[in-house]
Amino acid sequence: MDQARCEIVYRFLRSLQDRLCRDFESEDGAGKFLRDHWERAPEAGKLAGLGTTAVLELGAVFERAGVALSDVNGATMPAAATARNPQLAGRAFRAMGVSVVMHPLNPNVPSSHLNVRYFQAGDIWWFGGGFDLTPYLIFEEDVFLWHRAAASVCEPFHERLYSLLRANCDEYFFMRHRGEARGVGGLFYDDLNEATPEIGMSWELCFDFMQSVASGYLEAYLAILRQRRNAAYGERERQYQLYRRGRYVEFNLLQDRGTLFGLQSGGRADAILISMPPTVHWSYRSPDKELDARLLPYLTTLRGRDWIAPGRS
Amino acid sequence: MDQARCEIVYRFLRSLQDRLCRDFESEDGAGKFLRDHWERAPEAGKLAGLGTTAVLELGAVFERAGVALSDVNGATMPAAATARNPQLAGRAFRAMGVSVVMHPLNPNVPSSHLNVRYFQAGDIWWFGGGFDLTPYLIFEEDVFLWHRAAASVCEPFHERLYSLLRANCDEYFFMRHRGEARGVGGLFYDDLNEATPEIGMSWELCFDFMQSVASGYLEAYLAILRQRRNAAYGERERQYQLYRRGRYVEFNLLQDRGTLFGLQSGGRADAILISMPPTVHWSYRSPDKELDARLLPYLTTLRGRDWIAPGRS
Repeated sequence: MDQARCEIVYRFLRSLQDRLCRDFESEDGAGKFLRDHWERAPEAGKLAGLGTTAVLELGAVFERAGVALSDVNGATMPAAATARNPQLAGRAFRAMGVSVVMHPLNPNVPSSHLNVRYFQAGDIWWFGGGFDLTPYLIFEEDVFLWHRAAASVCEPFHERLYSLLRANCDEYFFMRHRGEARGVGGLFYDDLNEATPEIGMSWELCFDFMQSVASGYLEAYLAILRQRRNAAYGERERQYQLYRRGRYVEFNLLQDRGTLFGLQSGGRADAILISMPPTVHWSYRSPDKELDARLLPYLTTLRGRDWIAPGRS
Repeated sequence: MDQARCEIVYRFLRSLQDRLCRDFESEDGAGKFLRDHWERAPEAGKLAGLGTTAVLELGAVFERAGVALSDVNGATMPAAATARNPQLAGRAFRAMGVSVVMHPLNPNVPSSHLNVRYFQAGDIWWFGGGFDLTPYLIFEEDVFLWHRAAASVCEPFHERLYSLLRANCDEYFFMRHRGEARGVGGLFYDDLNEATPEIGMSWELCFDFMQSVASGYLEAYLAILRQRRNAAYGERERQYQLYRRGRYVEFNLLQDRGTLFGLQSGGRADAILISMPPTVHWSYRSPDKELDARLLPYLTTLRGRDWIAPGRS
């Protein structure tokens, strides 16, 4: 296995975690990230590896924020991970990534999610990742800003990269049991390497793209956050946010492949579940049909909308 | 298909729902069950059927309580439901049941769950169900009371019925990703009919047993509830309850077969998810190591303990 490439990516991921924690801490102004380093020796049914889980809870801006770095390896590829690449079954592998989930206190500020990951088994490698936005009170200009950032990240690499990765994202985050998307989308990619149809790229370009995805996420989310963080809200908006956060939980525990794979492969549950919102309400009926009427179209009928064209092409 | 048997069971289930709603409403004293009747015509990927979802929210005793009756049917058995009975694949079937989840406000009162269900495909039939208890602040005498009720329910039917169904329950409600049980157990059974090894019973006895399970649950839970409902608690205990409720959500969305089957077969998400606790907290670290030290042994090391013998055999 080409450990040199793994080390290059790992160094980037570690510095990315530091940068995200620093920038989000400074944005929060009060909360601090608690950093928990872990290492796990090989053990039956579990992946060996190490990582650092960084969590900020009950900050001024973020009610809960998680920035997790992990680097795991195994002597034989789990069958679940090789369905699309049967030639990999049984090979030694290494998988690493940074996962970010931000749950702000103010319901005017959307939750956001970033993931960038790298996988290597022998001379086979691929990158994956993306970012997506989950608003509670919807501001259409935030959706435009977010998707334009996504398009800008993709533009230098391939002409159709944004439209393909945006479509992947829409598909991935669609909750079948609710008939609605988790949020307003962004980018999602899996198995990106030189052989990927239409958007294949060299290792170097894929790695560049990983870095652009991370920077693009941070910039766009901070822009939205700064725009909304001081917006007034009351108990009504707060209750609606708590209710909508239930959907976030449902998606992550019912569908999210990373969450399910992590839990099944013996990962530390509390570290994997830093994606869970801090406080959540479930009720049989939506507490606010009026706020539903504003938000839900963005998660259903407006899902296919072009968020780039109106202002720029 | 023997519709006469289905009708007998259905009448019982309907009256059971009424009885549970009446008794719990009277126990609550303030909250009322909202009843939502639904019917669904056959549709691709969804089961046809009808039911009544009864939900009480923000009562004086129950923060959220759900008592759901459903009666669904399909022209062809879903593969997931026939793994153990391949001869059933493709047959028309009818499945009905009552599911109960009670989430009290006072953290001294455990949450509880009851399910009784009946399944028929042609001349093949089986019963399933059980009940289990999820305490937050643990009182050992409640665990004894609960298991003695479970044993009493089983005693008239088969000598080993309680020990087998209790073991099933321990196994079913074990959360692999947490290495702990959802609660302190009770009874759980699936595929009970005349051919079940060791505990097979005639249709009539199985139906009797269904009724005993339901009555045994109600009596035992009301006894615990009355014992604990006025026990004092403070913010500390409340916070711990909200945190532990996260485990309830995790189990139901990650493992519970009824929940997953319901959501996958196109059931109404809000009705299926009446099992979700009303308010839930997630945090990276337990908010209370001392309360953990009291509760967790019951969900881990004490799981295998004999809850019957000390007082009676």
